[in-house]
Amino acid sequence: MKIIRSLTAMTAWSDRLRRESVTIGFVPTMGALHDGHRSLIRAARLQCDALVVSIFVNPTQFGPTEDFARYPRSPKMDRALCLSEGVDACFEPSSVAMYPKGFQTLVTVPAMARRWEGESRPDHFPGVTTVVTKLFGIVRPHLALFGQKDFQQATLVQRLVQDLNMGVKIVVCPTIREQDGLAMSSRNVYLKTEERAVAGALYKSLLAGADAIRRGTTDASVILASMSAIIRREPAFTIDYLAVCDTLTLEPISLVTSKAVLLGAGRLGSIRLIDNLVVTAPAKRKR
Amino acid sequence: MKIIRSLTAMTAWSDRLRRESVTIGFVPTMGALHDGHRSLIRAARLQCDALVVSIFVNPTQFGPTEDFARYPRSPKMDRALCLSEGVDACFEPSSVAMYPKGFQTLVTVPAMARRWEGESRPDHFPGVTTVVTKLFGIVRPHLALFGQKDFQQATLVQRLVQDLNMGVKIVVCPTIREQDGLAMSSRNVYLKTEERAVAGALYKSLLAGADAIRRGTTDASVILASMSAIIRREPAFTIDYLAVCDTLTLEPISLVTSKAVLLGAGRLGSIRLIDNLVVTAPAKRKR
Repeated sequence: MKIIRSLTAMTAWSDRLRRESVTIGFVPTMGALHDGHRSLIRAARLQCDALVVSIFVNPTQFGPTEDFARYPRSPKMDRALCLSEGVDACFEPSSVAMYPKGFQTLVTVPAMARRWEGESRPDHFPGVTTVVTKLFGIVRPHLALFGQKDFQQATLVQRLVQDLNMGVKIVVCPTIREQDGLAMSSRNVYLKTEERAVAGALYKSLLAGADAIRRGTTDASVILASMSAIIRREPAFTIDYLAVCDTLTLEPISLVTSKAVLLGAGRLGSIRLIDNLVVTAPAKRKR
Repeated sequence: MKIIRSLTAMTAWSDRLRRESVTIGFVPTMGALHDGHRSLIRAARLQCDALVVSIFVNPTQFGPTEDFARYPRSPKMDRALCLSEGVDACFEPSSVAMYPKGFQTLVTVPAMARRWEGESRPDHFPGVTTVVTKLFGIVRPHLALFGQKDFQQATLVQRLVQDLNMGVKIVVCPTIREQDGLAMSSRNVYLKTEERAVAGALYKSLLAGADAIRRGTTDASVILASMSAIIRREPAFTIDYLAVCDTLTLEPISLVTSKAVLLGAGRLGSIRLIDNLVVTAPAKRKR
């Protein structure tokens, strides 16, 4: 496995392979790799010839009061995981190479970035869409894989790639969960024992919403009530938002008659958790 | 010469050539081609194997009160010029293909876009940098050529390409001028006879500034005074701005001791003219 730090070396590596018609797969990460990342890497490995994983804790997607400095970092374990999963190149750029003096360009997906995560984290998605555009420019992959756990992020990236004609196929892979349903996340390591014990409530709430839809409930306010009832049982859990949305625009919908995504976010102590489920309403019986 | 309207056909054309290590040159235009464009095309022809010219009057770079509807269009003459200059592919996308329903991504170069042209045309540069990003994604050129006449645009595009790691070499070609020095522009056809007669004043004003610098004047306010004196002789000409700037950041400078760009913009009737000159101050004699 090659470890590449230089941006130009990364592009040269990809360009050479592209000329040989090699298919390049790409999994962008911020390191602190867990089984969620592992599943992305394995899915990628099956769909490409050459596989690149980037490890870059992107400063611009953290707000000024957020946890950039204490975001978990485990470069040695990350490289070992990549090696064991057959990754061909690990791209580890420096912040100064990514954002040199004079850097100022911003890539935004304005309407989608405003909602949900964007409401409490206004700097987050502009940082994400800008760094993804840069990484795609440097790595030049044919396909890139994102986890469904960050549903809004994955949806924004799909819009971005389509709008800017980047020609990168975006593959969204299922969320990987702990035994109690908690979606895997690099930040889970910061949950205190008593917080970890109730963290599964967010997923259970989504399951309750999905169950209501599958049993024929179409009124979003009724679905949301069944979701929030579950979370309210855990007083340690503060709901940030629960929403029933269109899967493409992320706009809230009031009546669920086909596919919808249930989005949820909240806090346990200082740790923010997000999760989602995509559900399809049962087909209406014809008389 | 191939005429390509479909975005996917354009990308497929380029991808095939790239795999064969063919160098692709690109001249993006809004049509209404004149000798300025011709010089870009000829310069490109010498530096690449396969040459693409795009003709697309981009609606998003026109403000709501601007001249999108009456911007000059001459598709047949444009194609004839391209053919005669050895262009390999003329890319003519439709607006609906470029901006389909749901489109929302915006690429901005915020600090640079605010100044000069951006002050009177706030929508202009976000429209330009977004469409250039899209066109580069579709055409995938190795190099792209821009005219120095739109100095701020060329500088923004250079910043954009560097910031987003697009891997496209930007070549800026000298401004082509009429006999009296007026910079060629598709909008010049709209100048009335009496306006056309005095339109050369903008260039003469830049020449006066350049002359002052070459004779050792370093104080920007003195240089600007010599420039505005020339334009004030033409009462029909309304100055929008005259400025002495850093060539990379486009920030105004107060003392010209090395390279600088003189920027000028103004109005003759309803027609807006812009022009610029890059000047280098004479080296200081050592005692």
